[in-house]
Amino acid sequence: MGGSPAPVAATGAGGSLTMRPALFAFFLMAALLAFRAARGAEPLPSWNDTDSRHAILAFVSRVTQPDSPDFIPPAERIAVFDNDGTLWCEQPAYFQLLFVVDRVKALAVEHPEWREKEPFASVLNGDLKSALAGGERAILELVMATHAGITTDEFERIVSGWIATARHPATGRLYTEMVYQPMLELLEHLRANGFKTFIVSGGGIEFMRPWAERVYGIPPEQVIGSSIKTRYEVRDGKPVLLRLPEFNFIDDKDGKPVGIHRHIGRRPILAVGNSDGDFQMLEYTTTGGGARLGVIVHHTDADREYAYDRESHVGRLSRGLDEAPKRGWIVVDMKRDWTRVFPPQE
Amino acid sequence: MGGSPAPVAATGAGGSLTMRPALFAFFLMAALLAFRAARGAEPLPSWNDTDSRHAILAFVSRVTQPDSPDFIPPAERIAVFDNDGTLWCEQPAYFQLLFVVDRVKALAVEHPEWREKEPFASVLNGDLKSALAGGERAILELVMATHAGITTDEFERIVSGWIATARHPATGRLYTEMVYQPMLELLEHLRANGFKTFIVSGGGIEFMRPWAERVYGIPPEQVIGSSIKTRYEVRDGKPVLLRLPEFNFIDDKDGKPVGIHRHIGRRPILAVGNSDGDFQMLEYTTTGGGARLGVIVHHTDADREYAYDRESHVGRLSRGLDEAPKRGWIVVDMKRDWTRVFPPQE
Repeated sequence: MGGSPAPVAATGAGGSLTMRPALFAFFLMAALLAFRAARGAEPLPSWNDTDSRHAILAFVSRVTQPDSPDFIPPAERIAVFDNDGTLWCEQPAYFQLLFVVDRVKALAVEHPEWREKEPFASVLNGDLKSALAGGERAILELVMATHAGITTDEFERIVSGWIATARHPATGRLYTEMVYQPMLELLEHLRANGFKTFIVSGGGIEFMRPWAERVYGIPPEQVIGSSIKTRYEVRDGKPVLLRLPEFNFIDDKDGKPVGIHRHIGRRPILAVGNSDGDFQMLEYTTTGGGARLGVIVHHTDADREYAYDRESHVGRLSRGLDEAPKRGWIVVDMKRDWTRVFPPQE
Repeated sequence: MGGSPAPVAATGAGGSLTMRPALFAFFLMAALLAFRAARGAEPLPSWNDTDSRHAILAFVSRVTQPDSPDFIPPAERIAVFDNDGTLWCEQPAYFQLLFVVDRVKALAVEHPEWREKEPFASVLNGDLKSALAGGERAILELVMATHAGITTDEFERIVSGWIATARHPATGRLYTEMVYQPMLELLEHLRANGFKTFIVSGGGIEFMRPWAERVYGIPPEQVIGSSIKTRYEVRDGKPVLLRLPEFNFIDDKDGKPVGIHRHIGRRPILAVGNSDGDFQMLEYTTTGGGARLGVIVHHTDADREYAYDRESHVGRLSRGLDEAPKRGWIVVDMKRDWTRVFPPQE
């Protein structure tokens, strides 16, 4: 069957009275939306007509055309995306770290001792650099003080409240407006072609889930990230999951393939990242059999966003740049390849 | 829009030449299948027309009818199913334990010392009871000897080979033919109504994933289970995940809500289990707000399957039976409620 609408009409002529209306309406709506999308603009409208766009579109076509020798069935069309620096901005610091700062300030009223105690004192003085000078231990203390000791429901409410109101220090935009428009279009194009899109981020899984569905169209069960342990408790007959001050999993570097296997159990065919923390995810994805694609977002646009790579403290990209050519990974040059970076403001 | 087919025909009359054929074909196929399913037999044909069937169908209808006050959008229609004793048989022992026995026998040629060493010696003598007398330590030794030290790809091949050939000691059937036909129909009915179906099992996640999609229609990313840790390694340029002799997570009892939150990040609205190991999963599911359903499969049919509950070593069900009435959970009586237990043999 091809693009001809005749069979649908024939079906409808059968016995629509016995058809489950909700189900029929659902598929009808889906068909209408697909139809409208297909009649509309070309895919990836915020991408310039460069090699990067061509290579991505060619790959999608190659694995989805039924008569292609590289055809991959929909169930195996798994695409994984890093978040910080890949789907949204990560400068001047990971946004989750800015969330930590705001939480420390909010919680300081209950913790007068923090005024004298590092790393909290430096955070309260607005000196993030000194706060992080304490290394992993300092980060652990900050994360646990702001992310643990409450239930998952409470944490979700806190994140949702913050993300709805906090603003980027440089642009004054909401953080969810600092997502990359070309990547939103890529996610959409992949899903329209039967891909299942996942986030695989070093960031906290519960920090992303409350807004990832609304902003990226990625439901909570398709978000993979770092996590702390939780414990099931029944309080006055009401079950809760208490967030414990103990790391469960760090979803970064060689943790990313581990997290992918744990959550998805199937090797992706497309991976998109931006830093060397994504190297193993790209390597794992692109060394499987059959058609595979690795994409690196290279931050080259100091005017519209930020320009950084090998020497950057946040989102360092060095090995990826060195090895991309010989591995056949696409390096997206943000300045050259994207007509715009952020979505239009409403 | 209701059950009328007119809008589809109108759509088709538009401009089908610009329509993406694969996408259109996909939705057309989906609409046709939905239509055919709706015209076909009643749902749950292997269920007797008893209270259990009525309650399940009423719940599905209540949360899916758009005009229902209890309507739940598709993205939130999460259904979780235990596996052992809920989707397939768990007698005379968990099938994964019988897999362990077969693996110990197969590996014994490389381990002559096992003839003298417990718990292996008892397993090799066919005395499972003595082998398990060593408690958790014995189980740990058996699991690690048979499940760890190999790559995830190797383990998948071993499981796939075993499940394709090994046979149940009492019935002589393949283990995948020891699944419950009424539960296959329930999974199908839920998916046809926009539910996303997950397995949440105490069994090993990588023991289930190789066959769950083919047998249950549940893809690997919707299988949650117990796991051991893995490590990412690159061997001669080829990445592998090595299975380590260390538990990562035990997905049982109060671990089930933890596993659900970790993998799905959304509270289910329907949970089905059969033993007290599922109690917390049922409790967590049914104490959320809005319409919720808990279902317990009660093994009451010694003729067609097995009859066991409070005193059973495997799949003990006691607290669940006590509390089901006051919690409004449905207790499925296999003997009374199911017209058949296993699928017809091909």
